[in-house]
Amino acid sequence: MTEMLPTITAFAWVPEFARGFVRDLRPRWAFEEVGQRYEVELIRDAKTPDHRRTQPFGQIPTYSDGEVAIFESGAIVWRIAERAGQLIPSDPAARARTHQWLIAALNSVEPYVMAIAINDLFESDQPWSAARGPKVRADLHARLVDLDAALGDETWLEGTEFTVADLMMISVLGGLRGTGLLDQHPRLAAYVERGESRPAHRKAMADHLAAFVTEPA
Amino acid sequence: MTEMLPTITAFAWVPEFARGFVRDLRPRWAFEEVGQRYEVELIRDAKTPDHRRTQPFGQIPTYSDGEVAIFESGAIVWRIAERAGQLIPSDPAARARTHQWLIAALNSVEPYVMAIAINDLFESDQPWSAARGPKVRADLHARLVDLDAALGDETWLEGTEFTVADLMMISVLGGLRGTGLLDQHPRLAAYVERGESRPAHRKAMADHLAAFVTEPA
Repeated sequence: MTEMLPTITAFAWVPEFARGFVRDLRPRWAFEEVGQRYEVELIRDAKTPDHRRTQPFGQIPTYSDGEVAIFESGAIVWRIAERAGQLIPSDPAARARTHQWLIAALNSVEPYVMAIAINDLFESDQPWSAARGPKVRADLHARLVDLDAALGDETWLEGTEFTVADLMMISVLGGLRGTGLLDQHPRLAAYVERGESRPAHRKAMADHLAAFVTEPA
Repeated sequence: MTEMLPTITAFAWVPEFARGFVRDLRPRWAFEEVGQRYEVELIRDAKTPDHRRTQPFGQIPTYSDGEVAIFESGAIVWRIAERAGQLIPSDPAARARTHQWLIAALNSVEPYVMAIAINDLFESDQPWSAARGPKVRADLHARLVDLDAALGDETWLEGTEFTVADLMMISVLGGLRGTGLLDQHPRLAAYVERGESRPAHRKAMADHLAAFVTEPA
C-alpha cells in the first residue's frame, strides 16, 4: 500500500515577474521544514469552475491530506505544522502568540505589502498610480517601523524558536524582494535573509521555480 | 477568591463614523456567543509606548486571560472559542475548514473591504480618491461574487453550524454597513443580517456603543 502524500496545487506557468512570489511557496517551505514529502498538482488556470469548487476565489494553493482539504495559505501552513507536531510551540501562551503573529502577518502586514503590488503592478496603467505611490509607501513604512520594534534584536518572533509565524511573516515580507523597501529596516531585512537562508526555504524556492514551464497555456 | 475574568482593551472614544465598526466588537461578540463574562479596559490612546508593548501596531483590541495575552482580533476570537470549547467543530476536517474561513475573512475578504474605507475615508482628500472609487468597488464586487457562490444557500459557512468563521466573516462584511455595497449580493446581505440578528451580536454591539464617552480625549 502506498502512503497517501499530502497534495497542493500550484501554477504550471506564471509571468516572469511573479516567479518567486506565488503562494505555493508557503506550504512548500512548511513541508520542507517539517520533513514531509508532498505532491504538487500543477494547474494552468485557477479560475475554472472545477478548481473553484475547492478554491472559491480562483487562486492557488489548495491542500489535501486525505483527512483535511482546505485553501488559504495561512490555514494550510498551520495544518502542516500542527499535523507534524512541529513549528508551533507546545506551551499555550507561546502557541497563542504564534497564532497571533501568523494572523498579524496576513491581516496587519500583508495588506500593506499587497498595496505596493496593487499600485505599482495592477494599477500601473491607471492615472493615479504615480501620484499614489508615495502614499502606499508611507503606509507600509509606518507598519514596518512597528514590526521592526516588535521583533527588536530577537532572532525570531518567539525568540530563539523558529515557528510557523516566522515562516508566514518572512513569506509576506518576501513580497518586497527587489523593491528596496526593506532597506530602511535593516533588522527586518536581516530577519528575512535569515529565513530565506534556511535550507528548507532554499529547497522550496528551487522547487517552486523549477515547476514553471517556459510557455504560457 | 475572585475569578480572573478575561480582559480586552477598547477605545473610550472614537469619532461618530467609526462607532459600530471598531474591532473590539469581535471579541465582545465571541464572549457573548460562548457565555463568557469579560472585562473591558477602555483606553483613549493606543499609540502610547505602554500600549504598544502589548499591541505593536498601536491598535485595539488586545486580550488577556491570565494564561494567554495576545492581540489580533482573529487570534483572539479563536482563543475565546477554543478556551470555551464552542464555535469550533470538533471534527478535524470541519475544524480545519473553520480555520480556513476565519483566515479567508481576514486575508481574502477584509483587504477589499478596507480598500473602500481607505479610498473613501482615509484618502478622501487625495486627488485620486474619486477616480479610484470605481476600481476598488469593482475589485470588492468580484470578491463578493465568489464568496456568495461559496456560501450558496447555506445558513452558515459550515452548513447548519454557526462557527467562529461566520463570526469573523460577518464582522468583516459588517464593515460595509451603510455603503449599499452588499445590495447586489442578497444572499450575503441576508447572511450578515442573520449574524447581526443573533442575541450575542446585539448585546456585543450595544455594549460596544455604550462604552464611548461623548467627548474626545
